[in-house]
Amino acid sequence: MSDSSAGPRIRIEDAGKHVGETVSIAGWLYNLRKSGKIVFPILRDGSGMMQCVGVKAELPEETFETLKHLTQESSLVLTGKIRAEERAMGGYEMDIQSVEVLQRVPESQPYPITPKEHGIDFLMDNRHLWLRSKRQHAILRVRHEVVRAVRDFFDDNGFTLVDCPIFTPASCEGTTTLFEVDYFEDEKVYLTQSGQLYNEATAMAFGKTYCFGPTFRAEKSKTRRHLTEFWMVEPEMAYATIEDVKQLAERFVCSVVARVLDKKREELKVLERDTAKLEACVPPFPRMSYDEAVRILQEKGSAIEWGSDFGGTDETILTESQDRPIMVDRFPTAIKAFYMQPDPARPEVALGVDVLAPEGYGEIIGGGERIHDLDLLMSRLREHHLPEEPFDWYMDLRRYGAVPHGGFGMGIERCVAWICGLEHVRETIAFPRMLYRTKP
Amino acid sequence: MSDSSAGPRIRIEDAGKHVGETVSIAGWLYNLRKSGKIVFPILRDGSGMMQCVGVKAELPEETFETLKHLTQESSLVLTGKIRAEERAMGGYEMDIQSVEVLQRVPESQPYPITPKEHGIDFLMDNRHLWLRSKRQHAILRVRHEVVRAVRDFFDDNGFTLVDCPIFTPASCEGTTTLFEVDYFEDEKVYLTQSGQLYNEATAMAFGKTYCFGPTFRAEKSKTRRHLTEFWMVEPEMAYATIEDVKQLAERFVCSVVARVLDKKREELKVLERDTAKLEACVPPFPRMSYDEAVRILQEKGSAIEWGSDFGGTDETILTESQDRPIMVDRFPTAIKAFYMQPDPARPEVALGVDVLAPEGYGEIIGGGERIHDLDLLMSRLREHHLPEEPFDWYMDLRRYGAVPHGGFGMGIERCVAWICGLEHVRETIAFPRMLYRTKP
Repeated sequence: MSDSSAGPRIRIEDAGKHVGETVSIAGWLYNLRKSGKIVFPILRDGSGMMQCVGVKAELPEETFETLKHLTQESSLVLTGKIRAEERAMGGYEMDIQSVEVLQRVPESQPYPITPKEHGIDFLMDNRHLWLRSKRQHAILRVRHEVVRAVRDFFDDNGFTLVDCPIFTPASCEGTTTLFEVDYFEDEKVYLTQSGQLYNEATAMAFGKTYCFGPTFRAEKSKTRRHLTEFWMVEPEMAYATIEDVKQLAERFVCSVVARVLDKKREELKVLERDTAKLEACVPPFPRMSYDEAVRILQEKGSAIEWGSDFGGTDETILTESQDRPIMVDRFPTAIKAFYMQPDPARPEVALGVDVLAPEGYGEIIGGGERIHDLDLLMSRLREHHLPEEPFDWYMDLRRYGAVPHGGFGMGIERCVAWICGLEHVRETIAFPRMLYRTKP
Repeated sequence: MSDSSAGPRIRIEDAGKHVGETVSIAGWLYNLRKSGKIVFPILRDGSGMMQCVGVKAELPEETFETLKHLTQESSLVLTGKIRAEERAMGGYEMDIQSVEVLQRVPESQPYPITPKEHGIDFLMDNRHLWLRSKRQHAILRVRHEVVRAVRDFFDDNGFTLVDCPIFTPASCEGTTTLFEVDYFEDEKVYLTQSGQLYNEATAMAFGKTYCFGPTFRAEKSKTRRHLTEFWMVEPEMAYATIEDVKQLAERFVCSVVARVLDKKREELKVLERDTAKLEACVPPFPRMSYDEAVRILQEKGSAIEWGSDFGGTDETILTESQDRPIMVDRFPTAIKAFYMQPDPARPEVALGVDVLAPEGYGEIIGGGERIHDLDLLMSRLREHHLPEEPFDWYMDLRRYGAVPHGGFGMGIERCVAWICGLEHVRETIAFPRMLYRTKP
């Protein structure tokens, strides 16, 4: 276009450092208000949004005409002077001096996502564009902060990151929800459902360890809490008991929430999140046994019987009146994985713990103490009708320097849904994969 | 065991803060030297190793006997006083007061990895135990630091982490090396080979973005540089040219190497890495065009002809005499992916750049500028005989606010192999997956 840019290129989030200066910002048109004599293009550049001001009387005619006819999501570079403006979003505005349009989206084929309401299927089909919207942008910025907070917490607490394999020969959480992959020459491998078995090996090598990557569950459930591909962080500690696991989980969750409150206030505001609810997330978390939880649920009218796992509704009932996460421990051994340590005082319950987020967001953490005795683990494997050969390496961890150990897993998407206050996990990841959704 | 532990539990890496104090350290026996009157158990706890000293004359008989008969990788808690000792590994020793053995590995079934030489297949079969060895421990600690440095670099430079999906409907790098997954009801999806196409969408939403996760290539190659599952970090920038990509790659690589030199000296010493070679990694990197590289290779006796991609040997020739990474740009358009921007001045070469690590470690980074013009991209798609429908969403990025943009991908395992000075990438990841290796 005719006007060339002048002044150093800055990002909108850094505008405060350039008040009074003439700078250029490269971005896309988010919205445009206009009258005969003045235009207000709202520019987004990925780091933020800024209202810019173009005054007809102060601009070459061609420049004003260009600004006036900008279309949504056209790419452009605006040059002008930055001015502090209390009432403006972000606190700054630009007085436009010139504009360079890189690509003008034509009226004949306009940007498909308009300020009007769209159905969820349409938005999901256009997920590659929907990410540009204010709300989705805010959610994924919060997600980034959650990921940073998670990693910083473990890095700063002496844990070594040791990522576990995605291709696994055996199942950890049951064989019905495995995705099968054709490896070479008719070999079959499975996509990991959890890194935990491998974490136990690395905990014996590094003392404290964590893995953090995508995990996969071929669950045919179409609920607001399920994705087929989701990210999970899993710490594991040698020489640790269920009490150590609980304390770690509590400190960890509080640290992640505090970080988001500290760094992503603006994004939470965009999401209209009641931050008072998040500020309540401080230790100690209420603790109860599975026995007590079942009693409470039955009193509140749930049909649950001792021995069953909680349903989504049960989790909602237990947490809706809470202002912070709750920890439930000692679940029936029969409904837990084969490697879960039974309570020595009462072997029908296992030393496992779930953390349920408040406000009905349900389970975000599951973990506990693992069996470290070889004979006990072998007998549990048989009770679960699992083959011995694929687990032989796992048994080695009980043959050579066994110690009490434990850890947990936290699903990132559920955690982000809770922190952002979202109804459905599908908005917490850039390109969600669900039962009927593998595109774009 | 009889002796109970006393004193606060500490980790070996924190020993320096507890000189003169009586503390307990929980770990595993790495090695044991002994005479009739004194034993020197070397304890490892995952954070480090420490030589401990047990003197017969100063200990109850039972304690001394227990120490004397410890076996490799038995789990134990040692209690004693920490003493600075210049000549000791790590700089500290413990004078043992008591010992608690959690599990004594029996002589009848000893720990399989002994100080003697083992074959690589045996070690790989026992990877879950091999990770406890000094060298493997050091490599994975370096890997952790590389991952942290990578994330900190992008986080601190205004990039938003937006992870890309693992399940993808289409291929990015060619269809012959795809792993196929059975999704639900006869649907097929593929494991991602690169997040780049998705990164382009997120760069238009966030300006500067990166993804960092596992990627998959079903390559039937059995070389020292290939894994079927490997981790890749991929930044992407809107409003960026190939020059921006080169500068970013240079700053990035130098920052990662500097961080490892700063934080992981001890580990590099264990690996006997010549750190002078890493200290040479500072800007500017030597730059050359593909044309020049071919000329140099031909002079040095390579059979390469203009138009072919480099072989591993070519990469070695180009870099073995260099003390820092080199950047090669403008490869033949015909051998590059369909989305690579052709040089406007010379369309037979593309605005792509590879970074080759020195000392013969080969390509660690590949990247460049992407086509942002819709018509050009459409014609390139057809030339590559790729179907249009799966790429329709990708074309949208050229329909709605197209801008010049680019980025790169760096394979973590190759980078770690170079920094650690390793012959083969298989030791750079906890549980490597290769053509004939999917276990443990």
